Amino acid sequence: MTAATETLLSVDPRTGTAEPTELAATPREVVARLGAAAGAAHPVLIAEGRPGRAALLTEIADRLEARGAQIVAAADRETALGTGRLRGELIRTCYQLRMFAEVITEGSYLEAVIDHAGENPVGTTPDLRSLLVPIGPVAVFGASNFPLAFSVPGGDTAAALAAGCPVVVKAHSSHLRTSALCAEAISEAVAARGLPAGVFAVVYGQQAGIDLVTHPAITAVGFTGGHGGAAALRAAIATRPDPIPFYGELGSVNPLIITPAAAADRPRTLGAGLVESATLGGGQFCTKPGLVLVPGSSGGDAVLAAIGTALGARDAQVLLNEGIARTYRDRAPRSAAAGATTITGRAPDEAETGFAVAAQAIVVDAPDLSDELLEECFGPLFVVVRYRDDAELQTVLTRLPGSLAATIHGGPAADPVRDAAATVLGQRSGRVLFDSYPTGVAVVWAQQHGGPWPATDTQFTSVGATAIRRFLRPLAFQSAPEPLLPEELRDGPAPVPRRVDGRLVLPAGY
Amino acid sequence: MTAATETLLSVDPRTGTAEPTELAATPREVVARLGAAAGAAHPVLIAEGRPGRAALLTEIADRLEARGAQIVAAADRETALGTGRLRGELIRTCYQLRMFAEVITEGSYLEAVIDHAGENPVGTTPDLRSLLVPIGPVAVFGASNFPLAFSVPGGDTAAALAAGCPVVVKAHSSHLRTSALCAEAISEAVAARGLPAGVFAVVYGQQAGIDLVTHPAITAVGFTGGHGGAAALRAAIATRPDPIPFYGELGSVNPLIITPAAAADRPRTLGAGLVESATLGGGQFCTKPGLVLVPGSSGGDAVLAAIGTALGARDAQVLLNEGIARTYRDRAPRSAAAGATTITGRAPDEAETGFAVAAQAIVVDAPDLSDELLEECFGPLFVVVRYRDDAELQTVLTRLPGSLAATIHGGPAADPVRDAAATVLGQRSGRVLFDSYPTGVAVVWAQQHGGPWPATDTQFTSVGATAIRRFLRPLAFQSAPEPLLPEELRDGPAPVPRRVDGRLVLPAGY
Repeated sequence: MTAATETLLSVDPRTGTAEPTELAATPREVVARLGAAAGAAHPVLIAEGRPGRAALLTEIADRLEARGAQIVAAADRETALGTGRLRGELIRTCYQLRMFAEVITEGSYLEAVIDHAGENPVGTTPDLRSLLVPIGPVAVFGASNFPLAFSVPGGDTAAALAAGCPVVVKAHSSHLRTSALCAEAISEAVAARGLPAGVFAVVYGQQAGIDLVTHPAITAVGFTGGHGGAAALRAAIATRPDPIPFYGELGSVNPLIITPAAAADRPRTLGAGLVESATLGGGQFCTKPGLVLVPGSSGGDAVLAAIGTALGARDAQVLLNEGIARTYRDRAPRSAAAGATTITGRAPDEAETGFAVAAQAIVVDAPDLSDELLEECFGPLFVVVRYRDDAELQTVLTRLPGSLAATIHGGPAADPVRDAAATVLGQRSGRVLFDSYPTGVAVVWAQQHGGPWPATDTQFTSVGATAIRRFLRPLAFQSAPEPLLPEELRDGPAPVPRRVDGRLVLPAGY
Repeated sequence: MTAATETLLSVDPRTGTAEPTELAATPREVVARLGAAAGAAHPVLIAEGRPGRAALLTEIADRLEARGAQIVAAADRETALGTGRLRGELIRTCYQLRMFAEVITEGSYLEAVIDHAGENPVGTTPDLRSLLVPIGPVAVFGASNFPLAFSVPGGDTAAALAAGCPVVVKAHSSHLRTSALCAEAISEAVAARGLPAGVFAVVYGQQAGIDLVTHPAITAVGFTGGHGGAAALRAAIATRPDPIPFYGELGSVNPLIITPAAAADRPRTLGAGLVESATLGGGQFCTKPGLVLVPGSSGGDAVLAAIGTALGARDAQVLLNEGIARTYRDRAPRSAAAGATTITGRAPDEAETGFAVAAQAIVVDAPDLSDELLEECFGPLFVVVRYRDDAELQTVLTRLPGSLAATIHGGPAADPVRDAAATVLGQRSGRVLFDSYPTGVAVVWAQQHGGPWPATDTQFTSVGATAIRRFLRPLAFQSAPEPLLPEELRDGPAPVPRRVDGRLVLPAGY
């Protein structure tokens, strides 16, 4: 696939053993060529139109499914996430692709507007029509924790292709073979649709990622990962003569508040549900509830006891890679040193050679909550903060950093603590949940997976139908001859939902 | 208004004389206090609701109009733009405020979405509802060239207040007294509506601008100005623990292409219209056609002759400030040194002591077009590039930087040169115009005033109804008790246009 300058390794997280792959770091000149090919493919993908791109997305989903068993097996070996979870992730991945096919077919994502020539208090206004057009080739950085749904064939790739943007993915080093297999399926779909190879490519190796975001043809970057990688990419982007948007999602503590009324009502359900959510997929979800506020009441104590029971029954979990495991193993001792106590799940087998760790909860009284404990820790660990009263709860709330999701478990009846917390959490997160858990991120129109910093895409979401908006820009046509207008902007029956002279108009039979 | 630490000067561009004002650079501690007050006012402005904010915008427009004569006189003295133009600009400014009142009343800008709980191929989906919420306090940097419509009471201020974001404006040093007068009108309107003073403030001085964009309460920056100022602000923003969006518009060459068919059809009209557009407001429009492509045909020669005639009749024009005048006066000699010829309008009076300059066109053959001539020059100057054939035209087109607007004047019938150019210009601009001039930027829904770099807000517009989108972020509610939902997300008759279970629904009687 690329000139073999440096053979890359694939590591089995269950054993820690590395073996050489057939893959190599993509050399700079190849990145340059792939970027240029993406630029050249852009007009072709635009000319393909919405129906053609919808067909491409469907074709990709079909081909991923066709080699599903092989992809799932490779992903399981490289991530240890388990075949059940990965089969589900493949279903999600294919659903995302097909959903974006529907989104572009429906067409309201174009935000088409027609303003006929007229008058307003400022004077005469020209015939002006606008819609969203694809921004150009997009660089996508695969995430470690979702080797399919947030990686090579993931949501960013689906949204960008749907928009009409060629994609170059920088494969995550934790699942190289999975990436190569998925890339093959996508490239075959591109070829089967008669499109140029430049529509989709994948590159490997850290330097290739830097080369990619500084390539002149690249117009936007989608990224899911840590602060370090994001900072390096942002610094590289800042050296461009034309800085481009960086849509990053860089970790999140996702606070979860249990009100006194909730704790009194259902302590065992809450303790068990929380441990289930916080350890799902090895606790390696962007939306893991990482900071849990529990009242210092008898109900709260019962929640803590239930957490202890659930954690005690929790087997050791294998993390995705050595870096994540090292950071995780370092965290608990440091937290304990800060005066916190720790509840621990079952320890890994003594013969364990891979990246297995015990699940943990770090318990601290609200006045002792350090800034360090407000930082995300990737893996099956969460911090429990015990608040004695509303004043302590409010103090913690004002210290919360921005999060992707924030959750409140309230009482069965009116619950003023819940209501007051909802307002604060809405200011500090992209999604506020009630009596549920944030680790499921449904792929629907209303989804918001983003939020205040450390999500860099405060204005957008990276999951759900409107994720496509990141890869679009408005283009207006003033006094254009009708044949030069996109069909969605011509007079006559509305082919898509659009705004005409200030009012929304739906197509006949919509 | 602020503690007088350093008295600021107001300069009359017609004479160049500076006189002290009653205004001083805003000290750091005052900026800190105003930022905190804006943060505290944010929930109040949200609670005010759409009707309350619409009333505030209307109140501001009314009060600006009530002191219109005083504002126009101050602005004319500080900018030399002329009372006719400034009266028109005040009308535009008040219209923008009232238009945003209508936009938030109509309510589709909220992008409200309701997804009821259900099933999709991935599994069960929760009840999820989302809408756009105000991002938080916004810093606005007034532009030199529109002392009203893009300054203290301008489009950014109107859009941000409409969204529900308190505003702190950094006044442009070229029109301090105008800024103070407008700020007074806005603050009076805020008080009249019973809102806290923190809803709106203005600060003065360069350092205050830096202090403002690094204030923890500020969540977004709207900027219109040059690359130097933008770079300083971006660098300051990058030092924040939570970098915030910077919506900048940093200059634009706005190419205008005259096809051979157009030149043959109406050379005199084109030459006169072009000079009119390029010298409007002293050529100090973001959308001034700065680079004009004229064919090397007899028609093209006739266009050049018409440009010469129109320029020759053009009086000297007074520029906004000393910096703009200095850069302008430096440009023509440098361009001439590069082998170009110059057509010049009437020279300023010899007794002229202010910032008056002669209008100019620099004429160059396509093969001699230097990179320097592809850069914007603020003021009544434009570059005419003569192309001999289609190959030369295409070569110039591929060198064009991104622009706010790009214009094509085509022939009266089918014109393949026009059609081919339209596609290229659509890739390199935010607005493509046909047979018209880019200097009018209508305030309508379809407007796009933005585009590829050097507009930093590629995904958004800073003029027109959708400019409000820059100051909003999505917020989702999962499984929320109905009383905790914003009214626009509750079940029942749609109070605003919204998407329900995937389909757009308009309110009854919409």
